[in-house]
Amino acid sequence: MENIFTDEYFMKKAFQEAEMAFGKGEIPVGAVIVVNDTVIARSHNLTELLNDVTAHAEMQAITAAANFLGGKYLMGCTLYVTLEPCQMCAGALYWSQITKVVYGASDEHRGFMKMGTQLHPKTIVVRGVMADEASELMKRFFAERRK
Amino acid sequence: MENIFTDEYFMKKAFQEAEMAFGKGEIPVGAVIVVNDTVIARSHNLTELLNDVTAHAEMQAITAAANFLGGKYLMGCTLYVTLEPCQMCAGALYWSQITKVVYGASDEHRGFMKMGTQLHPKTIVVRGVMADEASELMKRFFAERRK
Repeated sequence: MENIFTDEYFMKKAFQEAEMAFGKGEIPVGAVIVVNDTVIARSHNLTELLNDVTAHAEMQAITAAANFLGGKYLMGCTLYVTLEPCQMCAGALYWSQITKVVYGASDEHRGFMKMGTQLHPKTIVVRGVMADEASELMKRFFAERRK
Repeated sequence: MENIFTDEYFMKKAFQEAEMAFGKGEIPVGAVIVVNDTVIARSHNLTELLNDVTAHAEMQAITAAANFLGGKYLMGCTLYVTLEPCQMCAGALYWSQITKVVYGASDEHRGFMKMGTQLHPKTIVVRGVMADEASELMKRFFAERRK
């Protein structure tokens, strides 16, 4: 039987979160954290609403997942996020020792790959999952904001 | 008249926070954020108590200061922190556009200087303020924990 729990399956959940951010006037980035094919945290960027640069989707998801698990390390977990994490979020992922990070669109300017931020050496990174959709949503957001 | 509001003056406040962390069994790092010679945020590391890798002193201070100011940017503010910030905290400071960062002890392994994390280009960095005291407190903490 085909496994429905693909990276695309969970990235769609992250994308739904990004759309929620869009609806609130936030830069549309969404994230979910999954363990054993179960979503244990979902979040979207809230930096404007909370007036807080630390309120990126990933940061909230890390806190929520640790809270759910009752421990601060996220071994066995996968983060799905629509946009490449920044230095701050990659730094948090480093501390969490998360097993896998899957992201959609690349952030050529402020993404952790370009900035040289280190993840935990054991963390697996997969990129480009639903990248076009995530990138399109970002472009639509900034186009509407310029109006 | 002599200005009492030196970097050492505010670093002492951050050091008091680090001592509070020590008393709670947390890695002893403390921080304050100052604007116009007034402390607007004070915090200490709470990663163990909160079971949350994102609960570094600096992250809490950034959130608290933005909350106090009613805006997410920390232009005009100075962060005093007893230990060199990590990638995550430096990444958050980057987004905050904070004016000045003063830290005590260097973190040769996981500090942002070694890891190559970028602060905002306008952020001034001062290091080594009460470095010996901060370093001594860390050593004492790890020595006691090994007992």
